[in-house]
Order: sequence, then C-alpha cells, then structure tokens
Amino acid sequence: MKQSQLFMPTLREIPADAEVKSHQLLLKAGYIRPVTAGMFAYLPLAKRVLNKIEAIIREEMDAVDANEMLVPEVLPAELWERSGRYATYGQDLYKFKNRQDRDFILGPTHEETFTELFANDVKSYKKLPLLVYQIQAKFRDEGRPRFGLLRTREFIMKDAYSFSADQAGLDAAFTKMEAAYVKIFDRIGIDYRVIVGDAGAMGGSDSKEFSAPAAAGEDTIVYSDQSEYAANLEMAKDAYVRQENPQEGQELAELQKIDTPNAKTIAELAELLDEDPAQLVKTIMVVTPDEDLVAVVTTGDFEVNLVKVQNHLGYPEVELADEGLVKETVGASFGSLGPVGLPENVQLLVDERAADLVNFAAGANEDGKHFLNVNWGRDVELNDDQVADFRTAKEGDLSVDGKGKLQFTKGIEIGHIFKLGTKYSKALGAQVLDENGRNTDMIMGSYGIGVSRLLAAIAEQKSDDKGLVWPASVAPFDVHLVPINLKDDDQAKVTAELEASLTDQGLEVLVDDRKERPGVKFADADLIGLPIRITIGKKAGEGIVEVTVRGTQSEFEMRISEVNESIAVLLDGQEDAQ
Amino acid sequence: MKQSQLFMPTLREIPADAEVKSHQLLLKAGYIRPVTAGMFAYLPLAKRVLNKIEAIIREEMDAVDANEMLVPEVLPAELWERSGRYATYGQDLYKFKNRQDRDFILGPTHEETFTELFANDVKSYKKLPLLVYQIQAKFRDEGRPRFGLLRTREFIMKDAYSFSADQAGLDAAFTKMEAAYVKIFDRIGIDYRVIVGDAGAMGGSDSKEFSAPAAAGEDTIVYSDQSEYAANLEMAKDAYVRQENPQEGQELAELQKIDTPNAKTIAELAELLDEDPAQLVKTIMVVTPDEDLVAVVTTGDFEVNLVKVQNHLGYPEVELADEGLVKETVGASFGSLGPVGLPENVQLLVDERAADLVNFAAGANEDGKHFLNVNWGRDVELNDDQVADFRTAKEGDLSVDGKGKLQFTKGIEIGHIFKLGTKYSKALGAQVLDENGRNTDMIMGSYGIGVSRLLAAIAEQKSDDKGLVWPASVAPFDVHLVPINLKDDDQAKVTAELEASLTDQGLEVLVDDRKERPGVKFADADLIGLPIRITIGKKAGEGIVEVTVRGTQSEFEMRISEVNESIAVLLDGQEDAQ
Repeated sequence: MKQSQLFMPTLREIPADAEVKSHQLLLKAGYIRPVTAGMFAYLPLAKRVLNKIEAIIREEMDAVDANEMLVPEVLPAELWERSGRYATYGQDLYKFKNRQDRDFILGPTHEETFTELFANDVKSYKKLPLLVYQIQAKFRDEGRPRFGLLRTREFIMKDAYSFSADQAGLDAAFTKMEAAYVKIFDRIGIDYRVIVGDAGAMGGSDSKEFSAPAAAGEDTIVYSDQSEYAANLEMAKDAYVRQENPQEGQELAELQKIDTPNAKTIAELAELLDEDPAQLVKTIMVVTPDEDLVAVVTTGDFEVNLVKVQNHLGYPEVELADEGLVKETVGASFGSLGPVGLPENVQLLVDERAADLVNFAAGANEDGKHFLNVNWGRDVELNDDQVADFRTAKEGDLSVDGKGKLQFTKGIEIGHIFKLGTKYSKALGAQVLDENGRNTDMIMGSYGIGVSRLLAAIAEQKSDDKGLVWPASVAPFDVHLVPINLKDDDQAKVTAELEASLTDQGLEVLVDDRKERPGVKFADADLIGLPIRITIGKKAGEGIVEVTVRGTQSEFEMRISEVNESIAVLLDGQEDAQ
Repeated sequence: MKQSQLFMPTLREIPADAEVKSHQLLLKAGYIRPVTAGMFAYLPLAKRVLNKIEAIIREEMDAVDANEMLVPEVLPAELWERSGRYATYGQDLYKFKNRQDRDFILGPTHEETFTELFANDVKSYKKLPLLVYQIQAKFRDEGRPRFGLLRTREFIMKDAYSFSADQAGLDAAFTKMEAAYVKIFDRIGIDYRVIVGDAGAMGGSDSKEFSAPAAAGEDTIVYSDQSEYAANLEMAKDAYVRQENPQEGQELAELQKIDTPNAKTIAELAELLDEDPAQLVKTIMVVTPDEDLVAVVTTGDFEVNLVKVQNHLGYPEVELADEGLVKETVGASFGSLGPVGLPENVQLLVDERAADLVNFAAGANEDGKHFLNVNWGRDVELNDDQVADFRTAKEGDLSVDGKGKLQFTKGIEIGHIFKLGTKYSKALGAQVLDENGRNTDMIMGSYGIGVSRLLAAIAEQKSDDKGLVWPASVAPFDVHLVPINLKDDDQAKVTAELEASLTDQGLEVLVDDRKERPGVKFADADLIGLPIRITIGKKAGEGIVEVTVRGTQSEFEMRISEVNESIAVLLDGQEDAQ
C-alpha cells in the first residue's frame, strides 16, 4: 500500500494526558484516537494489528473445534435478571430503555446469552461437549477509564464458552482452551505468564489468568523465583503450614485489659508493647452483600485479602465496612477491634497465622483498650472452618510449593479462563438428558481474551526510544519500503519492483511515497515500528539497498537480487526471537 | 470440521411467527436465533457466511485503497448535537446516560465520528483524498422490527467515507466505490440492480442504491423494460415533458364555484363532473420540521411523492399534515382543498402535469365546494420554481429516458452510496488548506453495505423447497461429506481420506459424522445448502462415491480418484452460474 493513501496521522508531541507508554506511543504513531473518555477509534494501522491478532485467535480456536458465533451486543435486562447479575453487576453495567420503555443492557460478557441459546436448542448429552466463541465489542461503564487501551469503556474481547454434560467434559475443554491460549500468545509474540486466577467472582471453581508483565500493569503477578508457581496477588499463597497444637507446652497467661489510647495502628501497638507485629493481631470488619458484618483477624504483619474472604464466604464481593456501622454494631471504632466479645451477629474469620498465636494482644472492642494474653478457645470460640488463608502474600516469603521465594511484578491481564460449573445453567434452566435419561445441568467454562487490550500490552512490552517494535506476526505491514527520492528513476524503478515481488511472496508492503525529507520518513518508520525497513537510496542504480531490522536496529546493505529470499528469513528470525 | 462438533440446531417445523422465506429457512436450518425482538444470534453456519461476505468486502475495499478502521459504537450525544442529528434523527436513535449522567447514543451510522477524526487530524489538501471504512454492529431502535434479518434493531454494516478537497475528488471516489460494490455483489453471487437512490435524507446530492430483487423486499424498484434506467420508487421518473405554453390557443373559461357535498375523493369528483382524473387536481397538505404548511398539487391520477417534496424543500423529512391543523389554517377539510385563495403562510408546490392544465377543477378551500375552470396565473400566481416533479411514478408509464415502460418489482436495499457534499464537514469544522492556502470544507461521500441483511437477501433469492442453496463464494463450507455408515471400514477410510485431501486443496469440508439415519443426514444437508455433497456409501469399497450438486440437484457417481480434481471445477462452475 502507498503511504500517501494511508490515514496515519503521526504527532510530533505526546499528548499531555497520556500517562503510560502504550497510550503515548499509539497516539503519537497514529494508531488510535480518543472519541470520548474511555472510548477509542482504531486508525488503519491499529486495525491491521487487531485483524492479525483476531486471525491468530480464530485459527487456534478453530483448531480446537470451537464454533465461531456472534450474539447481540444489546441484551434484554430480563436475561440478566434471571441470572441475578442485573442487580449485582454494579455501576459498570450500561443500562437503558428502548422506545417501548423496556429495559436493556450493553453486554460486558455473555454467559447468559449463550446459556439461554443452549438451554433452548440442546436437549441431549449426545450433542455435548460443544465449544463456542465470538470476537466482538464489549461494554463496561468504568468509573475511571485510564491508561489508553488498558482500561476502556468499550473494548474488543474474544469470549468463549464450553458446555459439557459432565465434569470430565469441562476439564477436557479447560485443558484444550489453556493449550490454545498458550499457542495464541506464543504466536502473537507477547511475553506472558500463566498464573492462578480468582474464579470466585464468576461463581466458578478454578481459573487461570494469562498476564503480560509490564510496568503499566494494574495487576500484581506473584511468582516464585525458583519454581513455576505464579498467581495473581489476590490468590497468591505463601508456604505457611499450621501448627498442630500451638498451645501445647505453653502457659496460657491471664487475659488482661489495658489502656491504649494512643495505639490505633499495629505499628503504634507494637511499639507500645515492644512486640513483633507478627505476634499481634489486627481485626478488620467487612460487610457482605447481605449486609452482614464479618470480623477478619490476621497477624499484624499481613494485610487482609478481601478476595480470599469473599471466596471463603461464597460471595461475588465483600467490602470494607463503614466505621459508623461498625461502631453502631460492635461499640468500638477501627483500631480497637478484636475477636473477644464480638456481638453474636458478627461472624468471625481468622487467618491461619493468627490462629496459631498464643498469649497475643488484640483490640478489646472498646475504644482505647486492648486485651493482652488472648488465647483461642479459652477467650474466643474458634472452629476449623473459621480458619483459612485470609492474608495477602508478601514479597520474599517462601512460595506455597516450598520452592523459592515469592517475587512481585506488575502485569496486564490479557486472558482468563474459568471453570464456571453450573451457576448459569441452573439459573437459566440449561439442562440435558444424561445417559440414564435424567435431567442434568450443563457444566460450563468461560474463556476470555482482551483483544484490544493486547494491542496495548504488546506496545507496552515492545518499543524503544524511537517508537513501536511490532512482533512480525502482528505487525501492520511486514516490510516498509522507503525510497529517498522517487523522482530518481533508478529509485522509482527499484521501489516498484520490490513492492511487486515482495507482495507476490504474500508479504504486506507499505511504500513511503510521500514527498518528505528522508529524516521525516525514517523517524515515522521507526515510530510505527514495522519489522523490516528497506531504504532505496543512491545505490539503487548499482543494485544495492539498505535493510534495517527494527527490533535490533541492525542495518546492512543488500543486493536487490537477494532481497526477496532474505526478507522472509529475516521475518522468520524476528518471530523466533520473540 | 466434524458435524458432531458443530452447533447446528436444525428444526423440524418453521416457527409460526416467521413470515418471510429467509427468516423461516435461517431459523429452520440452524443459522440464526432471536435473542429479543429485532436482535439475533448468528449461529456458527451463519457466522461462516458473514465471515466470507466480510472477507470479500475487505478485499475489494483494500483494492481501492480504502483504509479499514474501527470507531466506538457508543458515541457522545454532543457529537450528534453538533451535526444537528441528535434532535432530528427521531425515535430510531438509542439514547442513554452513563454513570456520570452524560448523554450517549448507540451509533446507527458514523458520518460524525469520522468527520470529527478528519477535522482533528487532516489539515492540508495534500493528505487528501482518503477513503476509510469499517465493518461493525450498528443500532436502530426500529418501531417494528420484522422479516428476520431484513429489518433489525442491531445489524452489521460496512460503512465507508471518502474525504476529498474538491468535487473532482468526490466524483472519483464515488466512481471507485461504485465499481468496488459491483465487484463485491458479483462475487457474492447475489442478483441485484443499481438504481437511482434518494440522497436527500443524508443531505447529499447524488446517490445510487444496490437493490436485490426479492418478494420479501420492502422497497419498490422501478425499472425500464427496455433500458438500463432503474430507480427506487421515491426517485423514479416518468418521461413527461412540460408544455411550453399550455394556455396558448385555449379560451380561459370563467372561474365558477360549485357545491360538491358528496365529492370528497378524486374518484367522486371525476364521476360528478364526468371528467378524467388526469384533468382534475388534488391538493395535499404537508408539514415541515419547521411546522410550516405546504400545499402540494398533482393531477388526480397521481399520488404525491413526499420524498420529492422534501428534497425540493431541502428538509430531511416532511409529513402529511394533520386535518385539524389544516382546517384551522386553511378553513377547509381534506377533500375540499385547492390552490386558489390559500392563506399567505401556506406555501404552494405544483407538479409539472398539474401545472400544464387549463380550465381545471380544484377544491375551493371551503368544505363541500369546488372551483371549475381554474387557471394558473389568472386565479393563482405560480412561478417556475414552484413547479417540479412531485408525483410518484406509475407502472406502465414511459421511462424518463424515453426508452421502454416503467416496471415495478420488490427489492431489498443491500448497498447505498451517497455524494454527501459538505453537510458534515461544515457542521463539524472539517477543513483543509487548499493549494492557495485558503480554508476549504472537505467534500465527503458515504458508502454502506448491509452485511447481515445480505445474509437474508441471499437466502431470499437462493433456496428451493428443500432448503438453502448458497452461492459457492459465501457458503459456510464448500463440501459436505456424508458417509452413510461410519462403522463400515471402507466408508470410514474413504471419508477420512477425502476430508484430508479436499482440506489440503484449501477447501472447507463438513463431515456428517453423526449417528443418524441417511434420510435425516440428507434432509439436513439439503436444508443447510452447501454447494457440493459427496455421499460415501456401499460402493466406497469399489472406489465410487456419489456427488450431488445442491444448486441443480444433479447427482452422479464419481471415482474417488477423480474427486479432488473435479470438485474444484464443480465449485467454479457454481460460481460462474450465478
């Protein structure tokens, strides 16, 4: 394609409000433009990258016999009322009425839509398992859209769903999809980790996240420096093993209430008592969607992990309780809360590490007072089902598999696969007759890839100070032909010949036919980041051009007669190098 | 692909509420399912057809250097307020508020979005002309969605826009796009006509419609039986030529008011006066968006054409006036209206045929009264700019080009191209500096293809009593392999070999591996309508299979060794036959 025909408005300056690298580069290189907050137009170069990403996804989905479909983006609210999500999804759900005053939503995801289709049209286990997917715009009314394409209100997602008649079918689909995802991300050439994800919010049992390490990432990837273990921060576990009987051989000292008017934080309490925070507990109050209060106790050196709490309780979400509500219910403010003497309507959960403490200090549920020498059993009843890992893992702790220490890095979620189970099939009546003629709920999986987010994630990882550096598999064009002066007959002839012969090879060629200075052409070429640049200059008449490999910035002269053969090899090399 | 892995829920019965053939067949053959009124899920077979249609569109758009892009589907209302369409687009526009109470719409088309992008990023005529397009869901809150995919609330459209610095650039883009559309529809294999369309509603000057003849079509195609002339009913013209001076040599009889209490219609008046309706006039009142009344006079044998009226007046829409308003303003009811003595605030328009009448009868603007011997000039002032073609053409009249008679047929609008001019660039400030350094409005064109509607239009045209008959270029698969009994070793072996060898040729193969009776398999095969079926039966062991060409239902035996070579030829033949 001729660059004069391409809508590619590069900028001299990076717009001031673009905070992260991908946003800055995609704006500057003329790939995207904002249309309104959190919604972007994909200009031609970006659309070419999206098309390549989508083609790779389609090939790998088709390879595992997933069926491509397309469902409406506008959905009747009634469908989401039946699953319960119309009420629980929160403010991110776009809601509106049509001209007949009926309620609709813009789909952020489509579990309900596909489940309903299967409920109506699949009646026997013999038709299962089936895998379906679609690539389509999704909508989420983010409170604070940000970071360019990383957090938007309208985005392109590949969503897939598996329907099976039994658990083995779900397990097989999950395994197939995980393998397909690995192929997809490998082919796209992005660096990523497969990590343990949180399935709880989707009502599922098991999940894996595909996360691309990048400074702009909003997620924390926790990984072991000596094993394959990796999880997102909400799910990450350290290697703590509970003691069998911590009180054995210890003298239980007398419970004692003391004044601690100036000890509102763990640090202040630890200093006052001259005690290690790991030997103290802190108590946090959370509130469930049913508006029940739950007290969660951890040792003073850890933070409470709300996701672990909500998954333990079986809620899609819990929130930190409001201090007013806590004071009204418990009679004390934050900083003086503790497990002893809680009202009956407040449930108690205790982290494993805190459950193993003996003679520990805790808030007395009375402002400005703490207890010393609290002991489980004696002072507070505590059952095993109240004890679990409710803490957020810390960098440097031993990995849960016992191999290596936990390390933290920032990541961008680019894919997520879930074992959903029967949450949606139960709610929407998606059942099949099994081998014995009995009705059984279909067992579902749900599998997403953030297509437009991938565009940004690649840009976050693959760039240098001159601009973008696309992996060959998803670059908008394969080769950038840059003649220095098209009025020179030799250069014009070589340019036309190379364009024709490279195109004949099936390569996508962009020809910079603009009347610009060479410096402008080179700067734009580096900025938009095609894998191979061929500069046609003064030596064209001698049969020589200059080849620049964008990734390595290596430049060398090449005989024109060798170009056709060499470029394919160079492009392959680019892909292997990823 | 194995049919057991394909989500293809065929039905025994056609759902009762499906009125037109495409809707019935696409439901029955498992291509589509309704999700809510006017919104459909495209099941795997339909999505494969859509993908092929889209691929053809992309290839032909790319061939004319159109740039593929993608803009948000959710748009800020403010953008449409600036073009004026937020107020004028009517109830079909989905409007809603986001969580911050800001107004948004769901885009039914994207002139504003692209104009805004070009306004911000293109500043010089040197960057133009440019062509851009996208393929994407569009939204229109139809009052009465109907006929399956033919009139929906969410649909897939290819919309394209051209931006030029001068009129010649627009003309060139329009010509290029028209040629590309011809290639697209030829390749898709649909029967269509290129007809004169109505550009008025889009604020443009010239338009062509691509209309697919089909009984289910909601549009009327008017065409000459002896020339290339074709237009939609709103734009169609007959060959009437105005008389130079109709009153010359005629005696102007005295104006006379008569009682006509029982002549409320033209038929009644013609009978009362024993006169040809072509020698009488009727007067219709329309109301403009500015709430002005306009009287439109035609001869009694024609209907007023509101589109011609609104285009003449330069409004996107006019409506028939309410009788109450007419009575209040004019003092008479429908049936007694006429051009003589209208109030000054009522504008008068006269059709050419009516303007050539002498001594004609017309309503007297007094209930139950008519005038006889009305004459233009003497009784009513009439200037040339009030006279034009305001009538709806009639079947059988002479075509405007003087060649042949006008014929009517029903058609489905599948494409529409417009010369838009500067309506949107003026409104949104999309200007470039021209060669002389002066600011000039960009001149735009707009070009649409109804992608999901095409799916239905093809189905309307290409089917028989057994089911769908896809053109080879857009069929979901090329070849349907139907083994009678896969437990038979010979049949299983031949099926596997043919699947592999045909796939290696680049053909898409569907293998019916289901445990169903042959009759069920054949019926399903005919219903879903793939171009070539190969039945692998008892003679498989002898190296013989049966080939069925879906389009012609011709069946013949073929040696397996000849299949690979013959199928490609048969498929080509199918495409040529279109």
